[in-house]
Amino acid sequence: MAKYTIGIDFGSLSGRAVLTDVTTGREVATAVLDYPHAVMDTKLKDSDIQLPPNFALQDPADYLLVLETVIPAVIADAGITADQVVGIAVDFTCCTLLPTDEQGTPLCFKDEFQNTPLAYTLLWKHHAAQKYADRMNAVAKARGEAFLDQVGGVISSEWMFPKIYQVMEEAPEVYAAARYFMEAGDWVTWMLSGVHTRGYQFAAYKSLYQKGIGYPSEAYFAAVDEKLRYVVRDKLTEPTTMLGECVGHVTPEAAKRFGLSAGTAVGAPAPDAHVAALALGLKECGDMFAVLGTSGCFFLLGKKKVTVPGTCGTVDDGILPGFYGFESGLCCFGDHFAFAAQKLTSPAYQKEAEERGIPMIRLLIEKAAAKKPGESGVLALNWFNGNRSTLVNSDLSGLFVGMTLTTAPEDLMRALVEATAFGWRRIIEEYESCGVPVKHIVASGGIARKDAFSMQLYADVLGKSIAITETAQAPAFSCAIGAAVAAGCYPNLRAASDAMASPVDKIYTPVCENTAVYNTLYEEYKLLHDYFGKGGNDVMMRLRALRAKVKGE
Amino acid sequence: MAKYTIGIDFGSLSGRAVLTDVTTGREVATAVLDYPHAVMDTKLKDSDIQLPPNFALQDPADYLLVLETVIPAVIADAGITADQVVGIAVDFTCCTLLPTDEQGTPLCFKDEFQNTPLAYTLLWKHHAAQKYADRMNAVAKARGEAFLDQVGGVISSEWMFPKIYQVMEEAPEVYAAARYFMEAGDWVTWMLSGVHTRGYQFAAYKSLYQKGIGYPSEAYFAAVDEKLRYVVRDKLTEPTTMLGECVGHVTPEAAKRFGLSAGTAVGAPAPDAHVAALALGLKECGDMFAVLGTSGCFFLLGKKKVTVPGTCGTVDDGILPGFYGFESGLCCFGDHFAFAAQKLTSPAYQKEAEERGIPMIRLLIEKAAAKKPGESGVLALNWFNGNRSTLVNSDLSGLFVGMTLTTAPEDLMRALVEATAFGWRRIIEEYESCGVPVKHIVASGGIARKDAFSMQLYADVLGKSIAITETAQAPAFSCAIGAAVAAGCYPNLRAASDAMASPVDKIYTPVCENTAVYNTLYEEYKLLHDYFGKGGNDVMMRLRALRAKVKGE
Repeated sequence: MAKYTIGIDFGSLSGRAVLTDVTTGREVATAVLDYPHAVMDTKLKDSDIQLPPNFALQDPADYLLVLETVIPAVIADAGITADQVVGIAVDFTCCTLLPTDEQGTPLCFKDEFQNTPLAYTLLWKHHAAQKYADRMNAVAKARGEAFLDQVGGVISSEWMFPKIYQVMEEAPEVYAAARYFMEAGDWVTWMLSGVHTRGYQFAAYKSLYQKGIGYPSEAYFAAVDEKLRYVVRDKLTEPTTMLGECVGHVTPEAAKRFGLSAGTAVGAPAPDAHVAALALGLKECGDMFAVLGTSGCFFLLGKKKVTVPGTCGTVDDGILPGFYGFESGLCCFGDHFAFAAQKLTSPAYQKEAEERGIPMIRLLIEKAAAKKPGESGVLALNWFNGNRSTLVNSDLSGLFVGMTLTTAPEDLMRALVEATAFGWRRIIEEYESCGVPVKHIVASGGIARKDAFSMQLYADVLGKSIAITETAQAPAFSCAIGAAVAAGCYPNLRAASDAMASPVDKIYTPVCENTAVYNTLYEEYKLLHDYFGKGGNDVMMRLRALRAKVKGE
Repeated sequence: MAKYTIGIDFGSLSGRAVLTDVTTGREVATAVLDYPHAVMDTKLKDSDIQLPPNFALQDPADYLLVLETVIPAVIADAGITADQVVGIAVDFTCCTLLPTDEQGTPLCFKDEFQNTPLAYTLLWKHHAAQKYADRMNAVAKARGEAFLDQVGGVISSEWMFPKIYQVMEEAPEVYAAARYFMEAGDWVTWMLSGVHTRGYQFAAYKSLYQKGIGYPSEAYFAAVDEKLRYVVRDKLTEPTTMLGECVGHVTPEAAKRFGLSAGTAVGAPAPDAHVAALALGLKECGDMFAVLGTSGCFFLLGKKKVTVPGTCGTVDDGILPGFYGFESGLCCFGDHFAFAAQKLTSPAYQKEAEERGIPMIRLLIEKAAAKKPGESGVLALNWFNGNRSTLVNSDLSGLFVGMTLTTAPEDLMRALVEATAFGWRRIIEEYESCGVPVKHIVASGGIARKDAFSMQLYADVLGKSIAITETAQAPAFSCAIGAAVAAGCYPNLRAASDAMASPVDKIYTPVCENTAVYNTLYEEYKLLHDYFGKGGNDVMMRLRALRAKVKGE
């Protein structure tokens, strides 16, 4: 009787399950559920309670509803029985934080906290803890804390401790009542297995946890705020699990509630982005995978610990066990193209798109694709949402240069696609100049699968081939691979990935003559990158500051 | 019995008459006729003869049709008799060139030349003589010709001699048959008065004519091309008339044909842009008038000859007799805003504009006007059609910096309006740094009359008041004032202008707090202006060159 595993990807707005044949890696069934409460960013659910600016909350009950819905759905759709499912594992956005009691019950489930916003899940993009992050950064820098090296030198407001700090300051009753602050991925794993666990990768990437060293010291936390001195001892536990490990087994209660067999292996949880390495078949030093969606994330396997300036740091076992994991990103990737389609187009094109019944973005990409490299005459800087890697400055902004009266909207669109490519190349060159080679690239995400024009352009600009795999569900599929190892079907992740990883569907190979033109344009990009990004002219920061001042922000 | 004069403005596509009361300056009647053949830029009229790229021809018969139509129309509309019209004068685009025989008959009116494109009028924007201009510039520079100072250092392909040179090389039979090459404004004046005349301002601005010195020397022309040595002696005559002078009187034939009285005074012709000074009431050193349309032109009265780098030079009596005339321009002014409305907008705004039944440009200006200075966060360089003044480089191009994902189309529109203002301010500062003060500004043109938001913004950025006069027909109205002097109704232009000039309709006064913000933004503009315009980074030129190479141009 064939065996199957289920991986579940908890994204920002929905949870998606993939049921996979553990022998062949075939994706047999998928199911998705949108969170009923989506993201609460203006009002708390079922109430008139207004939320402050930059809040982004979720209701953990929605995650349980995902389990109740998608697990039975994929089992039914596959036409199998629950006992054929030998393992399950989840990935999750992170840091997505919730406070629980000793038994793992979220505080927001309790009557006394149901009207307290900070008792709910603080989604990764809850950006209201910036001032706490600022304080933590200042103290860490002053003390020369070594953990900064692992995270690229800056603690993000999105991470675990600034969020906990915010709860402590702004909802002390929640802080006091919380036995644990948990990553939601750890919490869901607990709900499945009955085992309180902490995934190593969550901790390493979002909680300043260093392998062999641990969380930041009590002295550091006390220097930030005396009340935070024992935050680790009192509110967290050490990470205990690594991708592919078996955390425990589905409890009888969970089995009944979610339609599984009791005793099914539960694999360790993982961050939604990093985990995709498994499905995409990464296995060697120099393998990079790119997730190309609204933003762009780049993950790279390396063999030695190296500090690469302007990246998100180096994490031991960060992507796959046995490798140093490097991570970089462009905070704005596909968002650029959506911007152009929404704001940089022409009434005549709007009419054309309507007549042809296609979205504006497709029309613009189609027209951009009809031009040759260099023909648009326009060059852009891809910093519409700041710069996350190479310059690490969220106050940088976008630029277009080269427009004439004959410039068309598709010229601006093409310049934006090219700029994201140049930004990506700039990251790769930063790694390579530090002795971290990038040899093989696999891309996933919406753009990788749907936009052949852009992908060919990326290959041309990078001067490197880019492979696309068949799966459209790399994170969930990767969890299914991890679950297969947890269930003992394979001795290790490498063996499971070799057997199950998604096959390559298409390879984009650079066209020499295009690469030659792009080499020229890339030199221009670098000049502008350095002039506006490295102090030649800080006009972007000054414009932003002036704007904030004028608006009274 | 009241006396009247008629001024006629010959523009690029139409001729427009204004009939004015010489005592009060009141505009009594206006009439306009579109040229039946408009601009011939692809095919010669009534034929299948294709025109080469960059040709822009007109049929001089259209100018006579204007006279036949608009003169009787304004007289009838005013309810007066032809003998009440005491003077007439015209202004014309320039250099708008035509070859004639000894009697003034255009060669294109003759059977043997009716199929020869270069026997027709070469409109000012006929841009097919660039290689001849290049040759003339190279020789002039090599010889250190002093006439270059008067014209800002460069001979434009739009001017008289490059066009004659083209005719000589590409249609030698036309060159041989031509007794005269004439500015169309001079020719129309001849047709009215029977007097062969040459307007001084046409010659000074477009034919390298220097007061007290004359046209360039035979030695210069021979150095350009031996065949050109005697071009002045054989094909031109000296300028003989100045704005406000009486050239002669309407001939009996012209009176009959155009519905005038024989003997009516004919005033000297003038360039269409410069002449507007009269209607706008300019009279002192430091007076500037701005014509704000698709491009922006700035004319300034000065008391001494000064070389101001990056302007179009200094011409003695160039704008009004008794003053040095300075001229500068932004090659792209309102064209920027049309660009934004056509190419930088959003489908949602298109819907809004349609629902409200207003043009997109108005919607964007309205939304831009709702923001505060500095609030858009975006800064632009206004070089979408190159830079004519301060940098004098037609290969420069546009720039936007400061965009984020929340940037809206109106932010880009506002940045473009601001950039034209900064460009204007940059020109004024160039004058002032050379000791040529700008004290008083009057604006005319479509934007000056219709766009209160932009005009207030210009006043704020310049930190100077800007007056708007009532007339919407400044050039034709100015000709009517000149005609009143020619007719002896006033002793001189100053007296005529004092009595007749259009009254001030509105004054835009700078708002201090806006000027303070714009002073900050202007510093940013200057940084970018110098970096991209003065060799800090020639990326604009390189992008343009790459584009041309890729397109095989």
